[in-house]
Amino acid sequence: MALASVDLGGTNIAVAVGTEAGEVLAERQAPTRGEEGPEGVLRRMAALVRELAPEGVEAVGVGVPGLCEVGRGRALFLPNLPGQWRGVEVGAMLGRELGCPVYLLNDARMAALGELDYGHGREVEDFVLATLGTGIGGGVVLGGRLRLGSLGAAGEVGHQCVEPDGVVCGCGARGCLEMYASAPALVGEAVRLVKMGQAPGLLEMVEGDLNRVSPEVMARCGDKSVQGVIERAARYLGIGLANAALLVQPQRLVLGGGLAQMGEVLLGPVREEVGRRVKMFPVETLEVVVSRLSARAGVMGGLALARRRGVI
Amino acid sequence: MALASVDLGGTNIAVAVGTEAGEVLAERQAPTRGEEGPEGVLRRMAALVRELAPEGVEAVGVGVPGLCEVGRGRALFLPNLPGQWRGVEVGAMLGRELGCPVYLLNDARMAALGELDYGHGREVEDFVLATLGTGIGGGVVLGGRLRLGSLGAAGEVGHQCVEPDGVVCGCGARGCLEMYASAPALVGEAVRLVKMGQAPGLLEMVEGDLNRVSPEVMARCGDKSVQGVIERAARYLGIGLANAALLVQPQRLVLGGGLAQMGEVLLGPVREEVGRRVKMFPVETLEVVVSRLSARAGVMGGLALARRRGVI
Repeated sequence: MALASVDLGGTNIAVAVGTEAGEVLAERQAPTRGEEGPEGVLRRMAALVRELAPEGVEAVGVGVPGLCEVGRGRALFLPNLPGQWRGVEVGAMLGRELGCPVYLLNDARMAALGELDYGHGREVEDFVLATLGTGIGGGVVLGGRLRLGSLGAAGEVGHQCVEPDGVVCGCGARGCLEMYASAPALVGEAVRLVKMGQAPGLLEMVEGDLNRVSPEVMARCGDKSVQGVIERAARYLGIGLANAALLVQPQRLVLGGGLAQMGEVLLGPVREEVGRRVKMFPVETLEVVVSRLSARAGVMGGLALARRRGVI
Repeated sequence: MALASVDLGGTNIAVAVGTEAGEVLAERQAPTRGEEGPEGVLRRMAALVRELAPEGVEAVGVGVPGLCEVGRGRALFLPNLPGQWRGVEVGAMLGRELGCPVYLLNDARMAALGELDYGHGREVEDFVLATLGTGIGGGVVLGGRLRLGSLGAAGEVGHQCVEPDGVVCGCGARGCLEMYASAPALVGEAVRLVKMGQAPGLLEMVEGDLNRVSPEVMARCGDKSVQGVIERAARYLGIGLANAALLVQPQRLVLGGGLAQMGEVLLGPVREEVGRRVKMFPVETLEVVVSRLSARAGVMGGLALARRRGVI
């Protein structure tokens, strides 16, 4: 029987059914519609799994955007989802619906687990992953094991402070990396440039529609000013990642999530900044690379979590 | 037969002889005299051990201030010692002199090993140690094991960037924590205040002699301005330690080294800052405490390293 993977995001629910070897057999996305509250969202998650695997699945791995009890656990704090998610028994409720064990993990940690079992983890045993999207999540893999911490909260690369007196983050702290190098941070800066008449190339590419400004478009627009915005974000990313590297000395720093698709436009300056910041050991021993699974890390992580029956 | 521990510092060599249980039988300090070069320093290290244990020892644990090959290894890069220490076979040379195995480790990692075997590690299995002295070193213990990394370079808390455009550190990077919260950083700020006539209490306590300005005196002088300097350093410490906590979610943040002796004057504001920065998990699950071994963590770490025969 197959395994299922559910990646619960603020906007979409991504579901996949696959094999233990990590082969994806079918996948689907649907809007989260968080306004319907936990029960509505959980029902939709179950319906999506049943749709892809009418004959049932052996186990499900679920990634949630926030703090949760690891294992067959509860969602504790999902700040980006509307409705009361504090203490929701996601594992038990979904398990009853689907008649199989359901395992829970923070979404970025789940992506790191995917990277461990099906991506960079096949080559190295120590890496730090940063997932760059609407927020910045992360995961730390040391000695071939995903570091969790008592609350599964290890790996919060995006909440490293990179500006002591910086802007206040959604988490409540000040100057978090997420405020300077996430997709919204990049897009916001680009929109400022457009409004100031300093990004003619970008304006043309989006045909005057600011809704179409995205990191992907920014990477291709050719404006020097926009390039500057990307480099500034990359610089902050380099600082946050260098901090992580100095603490655990991994073999690789892995960039995942939507922004990592920008490729060398982003990666080049990140690498340079890491080189400027990591001086306590030869930086040549540290590779800065893109996720092997790219946008699929979450889905693959869910399969890994289901395959492992929650044993991390 | 006893074990020996050698903590090689830029100023002093601290040597101790003790038992497997961590009982120190005898200890001594002597000036490093780095200007005599590696061979001179190594000879003095051996002489000190022989002096304390004329009948010989079973094994020696040596902490060096910089990068080294872990185990019976070589010093690779000791920036704070004069003379050519690149590639010096400390383990082999000292082993020949003393007729027993000699194991090498970075000094802060060695302190963390001491804390693991004889201090906080007896109560918790996850902690991050920051040793606050002339420099700021550190060590990361996860799941009851000291994290090393391929070069034993994990744990560099003092080189977390806390000011992106800050002053250049001895390591070559900019804005490292060490530049804002080490003993020299504190003393330098205090001297500035004295020179500006803003620290009358401190001036009186040191009887006009700036050579006597130290963090300990600063903690007791009663000047509001000096208190401000301590709080600023504590704030930066809180930022660096919060970054570490967000990455690995330890149970404890442990402050060691000379500055930790300042007690609550420093610890209080560090705790507050950590509380302001760690929002991704309940900060109540994270204790900010002083080393159980205080100034002896290095020496105890050497005994731990010798007892373990280099197996970390």
